Amino acid sequence: MSGRLSIIGLGPGDDRYLTQEARDALEAAEALYGYGPYLDRVPEREGQPRHPSGNSEEAKRSQAALNRAVEGAHVAIVSGGDPGVFAMAAAVCGEIERGPDEWRAVNVVVVPGITAMLAVAARVGAPLGHDFCAISLSDNLKPWPVIEKRLDAAASGGFVIALYNPISQARPWQLGEAFARLSRHLGPSTPVVFGRALGRAEEAVTITTLQEAAATKADMATLVLIGSPETRLIQREGCAPLVYTPREAAEVPA
Amino acid sequence: MSGRLSIIGLGPGDDRYLTQEARDALEAAEALYGYGPYLDRVPEREGQPRHPSGNSEEAKRSQAALNRAVEGAHVAIVSGGDPGVFAMAAAVCGEIERGPDEWRAVNVVVVPGITAMLAVAARVGAPLGHDFCAISLSDNLKPWPVIEKRLDAAASGGFVIALYNPISQARPWQLGEAFARLSRHLGPSTPVVFGRALGRAEEAVTITTLQEAAATKADMATLVLIGSPETRLIQREGCAPLVYTPREAAEVPA
Repeated sequence: MSGRLSIIGLGPGDDRYLTQEARDALEAAEALYGYGPYLDRVPEREGQPRHPSGNSEEAKRSQAALNRAVEGAHVAIVSGGDPGVFAMAAAVCGEIERGPDEWRAVNVVVVPGITAMLAVAARVGAPLGHDFCAISLSDNLKPWPVIEKRLDAAASGGFVIALYNPISQARPWQLGEAFARLSRHLGPSTPVVFGRALGRAEEAVTITTLQEAAATKADMATLVLIGSPETRLIQREGCAPLVYTPREAAEVPA
Repeated sequence: MSGRLSIIGLGPGDDRYLTQEARDALEAAEALYGYGPYLDRVPEREGQPRHPSGNSEEAKRSQAALNRAVEGAHVAIVSGGDPGVFAMAAAVCGEIERGPDEWRAVNVVVVPGITAMLAVAARVGAPLGHDFCAISLSDNLKPWPVIEKRLDAAASGGFVIALYNPISQARPWQLGEAFARLSRHLGPSTPVVFGRALGRAEEAVTITTLQEAAATKADMATLVLIGSPETRLIQREGCAPLVYTPREAAEVPA
């Protein structure tokens, strides 16, 4: 019989976001696969070999883990955040779809994790308190016009927007373009949150506005939240404002 | 000085989804507030009084907890899933916005949790592998036309859709209307997932199609996922199919 492949979400940053299920799944695995920096977050254990790989080696990583599972092993791929959100779960499914029949016999178990938008939202209040969406700004795997169409649909529909993969050295202009695009639909004072490296020593959270938002303030480790027309700030003396989107939506947006 | 109010996400179902941060926050609280069934999931502890309240008493619950925190106590409100997603974090922010100035001095700490759509998605594969949105189908706090507009925007924009609060005794027709509305944009074979009571003994996950999806199969404890035009199934012998949305989107949807 085929073995098992667990795809485990570690959450962002440090261990505070690790669930009991993820802890148990890490414990049970006979071998670990993953992007090096994510593997580094898991304590080494005797008899549990680990196979780090590069950021763009998702296909090879999936194939290696599936091949070991086919042999009967219980292996795990670790992922930052939630493996189902722009991450390894879809990459593994894609390989199974395209791969040999025997990969379909592998028991695939996805272990959810805290995804970045939930962690960033929690840090500033309740910006995702009402309808929201998540968009990857990477045009490596989809054409830019698809992304523009989705930004338009989300902003004009009144959704709060979480932008994943906002910027990288190879994709320097997309976030600025996205801010410009969103400004067609949203007012200049719309709250924007940059959440960087949540739960890590270099964590930085910035609350600004769409008018003031500068793409240069983001990097690969940043999650960007853009409010809906109903998202607002509650000012507080001596501490950061709360950013929140009320559960009530009284008006039909124009 | 004012005390602290932690708003803690327990995740869906049982303890498997509890994070270390949530565990620590529960431990540190001097008193617990929350909807009765959520409080019941937290083991009782000597010297940690608990204040259960009804499902619709979010305002009163928030006010009671804020008042205790103003007195200097460290209190916590527990929430199922993630408190930032259609839940207590926005309710508390709303009370702070409308309430006395002293509530703004309370140190509000939101502790994120696994929200239902992540848990349901994990159970079936990777349906949220690409751009997606979350919509509450409750028209208690927003007019139905706003919901219709958002369903249109999400489906025509190519988002996978997670429907929260799909149905209740007081709102029996909305989910059927939503399926009909989505059928204007999505093909009859679009995958639909009903995820009920995840992590509990009565857990039930059903994979069907938009054409076959019956609103009567959902209840208050159900999260409904509707695929995008790119979401598909990977059939497997002897076990449930994987539902997944590939990370690649090659075409601009019409």
